[in-house]
Amino acid sequence: MSASVLVGIDLGGTNVRVGAVDCQGQVLAWAEAPIEASRGPQAGLERIVGLIEQVLAKTEGKPLKAIGMGATGPVDRQRGSIQNPYTLPTWEDVPIVQPLRERFGVPVALENDADAAALGEAWVGAGCGRERVLMVTVGTGIGSAFIYRGEVYRGIGGAHPEAGHLVLDVNGPPCYCGARGCWESLAAGPAIARRAQALAQGAHTRMLDLAQGDLRAIDARIVVAAAQAGDALAQHVVEETATYLALGLVNLLIAFLPDVVILGGGVMRAYPVFAPYLHAFIQQHSVVAPLGAVPLEVARLGTQAGVVGAAYAALKLIEGG
Amino acid sequence: MSASVLVGIDLGGTNVRVGAVDCQGQVLAWAEAPIEASRGPQAGLERIVGLIEQVLAKTEGKPLKAIGMGATGPVDRQRGSIQNPYTLPTWEDVPIVQPLRERFGVPVALENDADAAALGEAWVGAGCGRERVLMVTVGTGIGSAFIYRGEVYRGIGGAHPEAGHLVLDVNGPPCYCGARGCWESLAAGPAIARRAQALAQGAHTRMLDLAQGDLRAIDARIVVAAAQAGDALAQHVVEETATYLALGLVNLLIAFLPDVVILGGGVMRAYPVFAPYLHAFIQQHSVVAPLGAVPLEVARLGTQAGVVGAAYAALKLIEGG
Repeated sequence: MSASVLVGIDLGGTNVRVGAVDCQGQVLAWAEAPIEASRGPQAGLERIVGLIEQVLAKTEGKPLKAIGMGATGPVDRQRGSIQNPYTLPTWEDVPIVQPLRERFGVPVALENDADAAALGEAWVGAGCGRERVLMVTVGTGIGSAFIYRGEVYRGIGGAHPEAGHLVLDVNGPPCYCGARGCWESLAAGPAIARRAQALAQGAHTRMLDLAQGDLRAIDARIVVAAAQAGDALAQHVVEETATYLALGLVNLLIAFLPDVVILGGGVMRAYPVFAPYLHAFIQQHSVVAPLGAVPLEVARLGTQAGVVGAAYAALKLIEGG
Repeated sequence: MSASVLVGIDLGGTNVRVGAVDCQGQVLAWAEAPIEASRGPQAGLERIVGLIEQVLAKTEGKPLKAIGMGATGPVDRQRGSIQNPYTLPTWEDVPIVQPLRERFGVPVALENDADAAALGEAWVGAGCGRERVLMVTVGTGIGSAFIYRGEVYRGIGGAHPEAGHLVLDVNGPPCYCGARGCWESLAAGPAIARRAQALAQGAHTRMLDLAQGDLRAIDARIVVAAAQAGDALAQHVVEETATYLALGLVNLLIAFLPDVVILGGGVMRAYPVFAPYLHAFIQQHSVVAPLGAVPLEVARLGTQAGVVGAAYAALKLIEGG
């Protein structure tokens, strides 16, 4: 199989990325383009086909074995279709597996993007060689994926566990899901911004300087920058956020005791700022079970994770794994 | 294999139970006795051997294939020994696998008792035929075990996840583990008793009648009985307890999305009293993931679960599963 090639596709709400990947997880060729979802699924599919042809043209005629796609969810894996009018406007019930299979004559795997990124990290990134890989992505929301023995862990009826909705404070802020105190309503980007804006109002803080005086422009990135510059209010927000991040991690660690936790997403680009608080909190809770023994690692594959993981899903499909 | 027999052993702090079990999980013969742990491991081992011989004598000469033991933890599965001076006084670093293997000439499996009971329920009890079985035992503490594809899920280094220490209220009551607001510090038997006693003090309540006026004799059983008799204070404690039970279950459901949750332990004998609250709370949180689709079932095998599950562990050992 070493002379053959897999194609991985990462379909996001903004861009689609396509890679030709070998059976060891190395990216051999790359192409990407805006998806312009609102032009409709047919135009999107043609763009994807074009990108696949581009990367295959760059791989010296190595035979294509399989295609995998990680798509911004929800996806219907049974039917091989995308069900996502939320971040892909007009893409509701769009078959994707069958058209690609017919066009290229190879098996096609479909995963949601969080699972695909976690598969990539588990295969050749921060989770390489580990049996139990938990990935947590902190950005606009908090997502999670658990890769167990090289496979995506799925729940009842194939459903995807949603750690962003762990309930960490029954009296906490309302979440869009209807509950209160969900992890993502406490620790994701918008929650960080909300708490920072409340503190910054009428205060003298570097956060406002960085936001050029516009309270509503204060976001997680500004909070982190101000904290690193020594701003006390921003440091308070960082510490509070870290405690919420740590609380969710402690509960996931207690449930799964994985071999590694991989942290990804925009907020986690500031991992070094949060790390001391995370480690201290986790260590403090490492009594009955060895939570402190689980390494926290930052995702390594960056924007390639989804493509590489989709290729892995393709590989497993033809291996019957 | 249908004509051969397995032996399952459930070693508790008070009693040891031994069953001859067939390869379909039916108990063919049964024997039990006090373990009298303080008489020492040698005496205990002799008693166990005696019980095994008793049940084998009752199985009409069917050949013994393997032995499994579920022991009150902690156990060291790698070394095949019991490390439990807490509930088995004097039993620290006691080899158990090797002596039984030598005595009976068959493979011997060792699990902790929570995992053994969950294996039993997953095999022929409330989890039969299901891929993802989560068992939660609520008694003096809260224990959990997750059986995935017929195998005990283990964490890093083989460690056992401890759902009783999910942190559900960072400002909650202190737990013996050093944290605050652990699930078991909020919802297990002693927490129920503590909250009931605080409410009953100086009050007119059926809880005190049932405790014959002795405030400190109010326990979870009395709370449930008083609530069923219409006592408002007891009903309040039941409702509060149910909310905490439900909160922990919601977080486990979000993490695992199992095919079934099996509820065992002394407190769960009163499951019908808690059930309406549990269902309402879980349904309310069943938005982003299908928590409400996961059935809650009461454990079915009663005191046989550990023996049957230990026999299953023995069966898997010889099957190489």
